[in-house]
Amino acid sequence: MVKVTRLTKKNVNILRVNIKINKESRIPDYLQLINQIKEGASSNEQEINTLIKDIDNASVILDLERSVVLKALRQLEFQGILYRETDLTFVVNSQAESSRYSARGVSSDKTEVLQTIASLDKGLYPNAFCKISEDFLSGREDYCNLIHSDGAGTKSIVAYLQYKESGDPKVFRGIAQDSIVMNLDDLICSGARSSILISTTINRNAMNCPQEVIRELILGTEDFLESMRTLGINIRSGGGETADVGDLTGTIIVDSCASTILKRQDVIKNEISEDLTILGFSSTGKSTYETAANSGVGSNGLTSARHELLSKFYRGKYPETADLSIDPDLSYCGRWRLEDQLPGTPMTIGSALLSPTRTYAPLIAALSNEFKAEIKGLVHCSGGGQTKCLRFGKNIHFVKDQLFEVPPLFETIRTASNTPWQEMYKTFNMGHRMELYINARHTDSVISLAKSFNIEARIIGFTERAKSNCLTLTKGNQKLFYES
Amino acid sequence: MVKVTRLTKKNVNILRVNIKINKESRIPDYLQLINQIKEGASSNEQEINTLIKDIDNASVILDLERSVVLKALRQLEFQGILYRETDLTFVVNSQAESSRYSARGVSSDKTEVLQTIASLDKGLYPNAFCKISEDFLSGREDYCNLIHSDGAGTKSIVAYLQYKESGDPKVFRGIAQDSIVMNLDDLICSGARSSILISTTINRNAMNCPQEVIRELILGTEDFLESMRTLGINIRSGGGETADVGDLTGTIIVDSCASTILKRQDVIKNEISEDLTILGFSSTGKSTYETAANSGVGSNGLTSARHELLSKFYRGKYPETADLSIDPDLSYCGRWRLEDQLPGTPMTIGSALLSPTRTYAPLIAALSNEFKAEIKGLVHCSGGGQTKCLRFGKNIHFVKDQLFEVPPLFETIRTASNTPWQEMYKTFNMGHRMELYINARHTDSVISLAKSFNIEARIIGFTERAKSNCLTLTKGNQKLFYES
Repeated sequence: MVKVTRLTKKNVNILRVNIKINKESRIPDYLQLINQIKEGASSNEQEINTLIKDIDNASVILDLERSVVLKALRQLEFQGILYRETDLTFVVNSQAESSRYSARGVSSDKTEVLQTIASLDKGLYPNAFCKISEDFLSGREDYCNLIHSDGAGTKSIVAYLQYKESGDPKVFRGIAQDSIVMNLDDLICSGARSSILISTTINRNAMNCPQEVIRELILGTEDFLESMRTLGINIRSGGGETADVGDLTGTIIVDSCASTILKRQDVIKNEISEDLTILGFSSTGKSTYETAANSGVGSNGLTSARHELLSKFYRGKYPETADLSIDPDLSYCGRWRLEDQLPGTPMTIGSALLSPTRTYAPLIAALSNEFKAEIKGLVHCSGGGQTKCLRFGKNIHFVKDQLFEVPPLFETIRTASNTPWQEMYKTFNMGHRMELYINARHTDSVISLAKSFNIEARIIGFTERAKSNCLTLTKGNQKLFYES
Repeated sequence: MVKVTRLTKKNVNILRVNIKINKESRIPDYLQLINQIKEGASSNEQEINTLIKDIDNASVILDLERSVVLKALRQLEFQGILYRETDLTFVVNSQAESSRYSARGVSSDKTEVLQTIASLDKGLYPNAFCKISEDFLSGREDYCNLIHSDGAGTKSIVAYLQYKESGDPKVFRGIAQDSIVMNLDDLICSGARSSILISTTINRNAMNCPQEVIRELILGTEDFLESMRTLGINIRSGGGETADVGDLTGTIIVDSCASTILKRQDVIKNEISEDLTILGFSSTGKSTYETAANSGVGSNGLTSARHELLSKFYRGKYPETADLSIDPDLSYCGRWRLEDQLPGTPMTIGSALLSPTRTYAPLIAALSNEFKAEIKGLVHCSGGGQTKCLRFGKNIHFVKDQLFEVPPLFETIRTASNTPWQEMYKTFNMGHRMELYINARHTDSVISLAKSFNIEARIIGFTERAKSNCLTLTKGNQKLFYES
């Protein structure tokens, strides 16, 4: 490519494009460009490719600032619509499937992050659910260490909306639980059962989230940990941090970090093999240790759930809860308010979205006491939903052909947003957030043990040998296929 | 107070107020109200009190929506200008000193958070720099545990601006270091010296901070930890988490959590007594283990530093880096751009603001080898700056009468913003970010040891008995007094 520093209408490669930027529109120029390239990417791929292979050219043709064109193209690159060939040349990704999820700046498969860390040390047990390292903390050969971070993600925004509407900060107690459980249940899948130390970090906009919010988060943390200890899970808070960072967030971000030491012999290596039964543990209902029925929502997919269900009312009233660089058509495009009824349930939309993430820790601890040596794998279906299992085992075909019925919340999201099943199962847990890989002969005992916690368990599928990891989900007559 | 649900101009308590809201102004109504109440709070306290003691009344008099009035009053409450008497009545705080810092939604003294956690367990050593708990992790009686969280705060925004302007994501390597050192140096003050496990959480706007930013943060983390291990500090990463949360942040937030086990006998209890010498370790210069001269900035006070130094140019070009609910007059009100020279130095404003937080870990580790039993206290002058020491010891008067010369960056911030010295010393480290409490007879040896790391150390003051903890700072002829 010849670099042309100052182009004018006279010396550019004039080409006819159907893209028209309306400078009078309230929609920013770069968003108009994004939307029109998206629309044309499949039908006019050739034409778009000619346009975007030279930024300077495109800038003159479209009569847009170079930085505006670049911003649009880079966002399209992130969305998977375009590839970047060099710093300044792009090309249409002809395999792109338009994903509402990535258009909102959320990558459910985290490919890019996983690539970056692929070169780093994978720890002692590369297939274990969390990274496990040798015992730096206490220096004992037969032990190992685990430190793990995760948080409530954008679920805190739903809590914020509810808080602002109702004035009751207690809604943040559930967020404290969400942040802890997102760590606790990952640890549980690695074999940790006790001696867990946790710390929570709160990044807040102090103007919008005053003292009373912090108080409820701290008290919610302490209460939840206390309830876990009563159930035999030895988890304790070692403190936490609150930062007032109004320039970084308009609302509040709640993250936790958990650390533990465990015996190497207790690690669940998640070396998932063929011919195992997959047991799923329901994410809905009311377990013996919950105070209300759970919608099953967990803490994943909340960006999507919030925008698909909640109405423009919230975008207008609480602009601090929406990314201003996202296409407004993808933001709060639902028909409901928090206090509306969730179809087919006695819950409101708000209480369903805010249902605190269920921990499976008490159940899995009990399970370990009885079947420890028999647990071949445990998968927390968090980010990636039902496709999370693809990261474990080698050359395994995961067949999930008897999934739980889709809980009403997820069904409502799907129908409201017209999201394909393929994407729904990648984003949400869709009915079970924890799965156990075990030999078929133990399934009845496990199902019965789960029942004692009032958690429904069922055989949802099995594993078989394959050429590489893949997954088939059966939904009615439809089969959904995923590769790792 | 009689509750009147629908007031009109006719049945309100008409009172003359000098507050005029200009509906044509580009400044939002609530900000106009905030500014005018602030101006009148000291001169017309009585009049303001009459106005704000009834929200409904005020709403009619000012011809503003009730929610607008409430928003303004709550922000003034947060800023310490008003007290809230009941849910809907406020009164002027006649002791208020107008603080630019709290007006930006940043509480440097964290009073409210400290109050909330005051009721919680303080751990084994209530005066230790970090909360220390019994050894849950390995269950040994003579050991104890520490888990600690902190992060780079709004320093990541300066890196973001530099990255967007230059296109070079490597600037984020320093942010990785900032986030780690904010934990490491707190741990060091508690007596931890090795066997530290760390995890970093990145909350990002994926549209604005693509893959290359994450890569540099991860590689920056690994490189910094490797450099620490070369210097004998056994600190390792146990993994991390990246979350795409564009609705929560327009840019990027980097936090870390560190966990360690230490022998109880190694804990620095920070039971600071009278008649000790206070030695300060310079935050500027180029230590033997740094690759460039340090501006001394650390990771505290960066919200203030950024807004006081950087020009409106950045607010206009990068609106995602400013809290939209803050008075625009307090946002990016400086005269410089990142590439401008910092007065009196060879550094640019950008490189001075982004100078990676120096760790004192190698120096303190060497110090511990020689003087372990003699270390009576270590204070990391992070949040709270030079007043941080007030949290340690009992009935101690901290006299700091020979402080380091104020580094050019802090001097520039002070003169540019007209911030009183009293507030400067509460916000920034002002020359030393680590202080040691020790008997006078060891000072020469310590100063000489520090010199071997090319870190300037000096006697900055002493402790004496008092009725309660207090601090006197001497700055030229001026004495600044603080109470805990």
